[in-house]
Amino acid sequence: MDQLVLRNDTGHVARLTLNSPKNFNALSVEMIAALSDHLTAIADDDSIRAVILSGTGKAFCAGHDLRQMQSARDLPDGGGAAYQSLFDDCARMMQMIPALPQPVIAQVHGIATAAGCQLVASCDLAIAAEGTRFGVNGVNIGLFCSTPMVALSRVIPPKAAFEMLTTGNFIDAVRARELGLINQIAPGDELADQALSMAQTIAAKLPAAVRMGKRAFHDQMGLGLADAYGRAGGTMCENMMLPETDEGITAFLEKRPPNWS
Amino acid sequence: MDQLVLRNDTGHVARLTLNSPKNFNALSVEMIAALSDHLTAIADDDSIRAVILSGTGKAFCAGHDLRQMQSARDLPDGGGAAYQSLFDDCARMMQMIPALPQPVIAQVHGIATAAGCQLVASCDLAIAAEGTRFGVNGVNIGLFCSTPMVALSRVIPPKAAFEMLTTGNFIDAVRARELGLINQIAPGDELADQALSMAQTIAAKLPAAVRMGKRAFHDQMGLGLADAYGRAGGTMCENMMLPETDEGITAFLEKRPPNWS
Amino acid sequence: MDQLVLRNDTGHVARLTLNSPKNFNALSVEMIAALSDHLTAIADDDSIRAVILSGTGKAFCAGHDLRQMQSARDLPDGGGAAYQSLFDDCARMMQMIPALPQPVIAQVHGIATAAGCQLVASCDLAIAAEGTRFGVNGVNIGLFCSTPMVALSRVIPPKAAFEMLTTGNFIDAVRARELGLINQIAPGDELADQALSMAQTIAAKLPAAVRMGKRAFHDQMGLGLADAYGRAGGTMCENMMLPETDEGITAFLEKRPPNWS
Repeated sequence: MDQLVLRNDTGHVARLTLNSPKNFNALSVEMIAALSDHLTAIADDDSIRAVILSGTGKAFCAGHDLRQMQSARDLPDGGGAAYQSLFDDCARMMQMIPALPQPVIAQVHGIATAAGCQLVASCDLAIAAEGTRFGVNGVNIGLFCSTPMVALSRVIPPKAAFEMLTTGNFIDAVRARELGLINQIAPGDELADQALSMAQTIAAKLPAAVRMGKRAFHDQMGLGLADAYGRAGGTMCENMMLPETDEGITAFLEKRPPNWS
Repeated sequence: MDQLVLRNDTGHVARLTLNSPKNFNALSVEMIAALSDHLTAIADDDSIRAVILSGTGKAFCAGHDLRQMQSARDLPDGGGAAYQSLFDDCARMMQMIPALPQPVIAQVHGIATAAGCQLVASCDLAIAAEGTRFGVNGVNIGLFCSTPMVALSRVIPPKAAFEMLTTGNFIDAVRARELGLINQIAPGDELADQALSMAQTIAAKLPAAVRMGKRAFHDQMGLGLADAYGRAGGTMCENMMLPETDEGITAFLEKRPPNWS
Repeated sequence: MDQLVLRNDTGHVARLTLNSPKNFNALSVEMIAALSDHLTAIADDDSIRAVILSGTGKAFCAGHDLRQMQSARDLPDGGGAAYQSLFDDCARMMQMIPALPQPVIAQVHGIATAAGCQLVASCDLAIAAEGTRFGVNGVNIGLFCSTPMVALSRVIPPKAAFEMLTTGNFIDAVRARELGLINQIAPGDELADQALSMAQTIAAKLPAAVRMGKRAFHDQMGLGLADAYGRAGGTMCENMMLPETDEGITAFLEKRPPNWS
């Protein structure tokens, strides 16, 4: 009951739930560590083919734990080392998501702000409940969302990101989907089901293909065209040589489902 | 009648038509070679100022030729060398499109899937018929669309690309335009006319300006801001020194059409 | 009255107004110099926290001064050195905008074409009046908008940019917002007020946080994920150590406005 992050598996889908509703699932030092531990465990768990990241209570995640951060100011160095460590750990956790072998779906409701919005941006996919609001509004309290910006500015157009960062304005789910921050909008009472459905859709694919595909996706992203094709072409060949891919294509040509038991 | 790719010129516009309707214009080894040959010829054809790429039959292009690919499994190496060669040739052909001096417009109908969707993404411009569906759905048969991903992830936002790649879900023409995969949607019976009209609009511009502009567009794309301006500034100067540009600007200032005979 | 660029400050907001309505605020050599001088002065003006860039007359800005450019053709070198100098100065001015410590908002009405559209793309934020039209239509007169392309292709999807560049087609404000070229659309008679309101929203934030945030935004943009997080994490730590940020967070936790006098 006290666990900061809950894990519940449904078949090949792992659901991680941020479980600190009293502070809107704040990304405290402990929450970041718990999330990192779960991601590390899932990375090595071949039975898991897709991950859902959600939160309990009224909000998906409201960012860092400001009370905890303020308490570090009493340390001899004024908190400098603690902040460096916090942002390092947080950035490392955020980067574990694209590095994870399995696709990760953010299931978002209520609000996703600051590092909570960064978490949505860092996931491979995102589904939000109608009415969800997204912001990188640290600027309102004098703390520009510089690290959330890294993830956000890689998934939505630059002017839209800059507006959110400097005005603190929120965007709604419709605009978030238009801009590319989320993939899908669901009625609140169907949110969990739709996230699970998307995860199960992915989990029903050939796991080895999804894994090598996700890796190639992130590896080729910043490369020039020729290098990107070199990288991705190697993956295509490797993928073609899998016996299960032979079976998958054969089944398709024979108009039957693949036998990937 | 047996040609895999048909070429028909209208004035300064070349139309290339994928002509293998029985397998939905599959990108077989022969189709890739035929398309490459046509692109090579057009690159050297100064009379051509814009290119339309379309397909016969029910679909624009459904990707690679799976039957042909499966047949290579009987080779001593299980097909490894054949696949490497296929993906190399295909990536080379795809990269010929941005490298071509003339703008290339994809005229898309029915479906554009896997390497067929990559072809749309690789073209400089795209017009689709209402109801056209786009997918990179190789994952459904165990073959992640890693090479189509290279082109797709450079024209639409990353989360939208990732969803298509891992779920196999299709998007429709409206969403494709919202995301940036296509430029324009036309009623099916106006598709060819609208593509031709766009091509003729471009063909009516000063060819040398369009050519140096297209080259600069792709050259500056991945560069930092200062380097990109250095590259593009050189093109502006070169462009200004053309006698036809002198005439174009003079004509504009004199409120008459340019005399670019 | 004769000044090419007017400056009017309202509190911490500087408004720069292009003031050459007779040629639609053309970016002549003198206009670029005047704008550069103002930006240089604002960069050193700690009292300014946000900048609005607008234009007098019927249009925001119609690009370069074609009459002036044509007159250089009479020089011994046919204008080559003048054009090189013009495009260098212009690119330098455009790059001063992201490099400026303060956010810059383009307030756009009428038309923004060629280098005028580049100016909109180069600003951090943009608000346009209903009915505003955007184009990079130099191709119509034989001069491909290669330098405007640099800014444009970094804020809207590549196929949409390529269409504007090669067809000369305009887009309206609604499509411009959908694509990411602008942030907001206002009725014409509310345009200036809404731009001022956005600027004042930003000016009410902690200036040091906005400044370090804007710098980090542009610095991290082209970097790989790990490098970007390294860069942004340093900014977060620096930001946290500001006494005003301590006050901002404390005030938030105490549910009162920050005391940033």
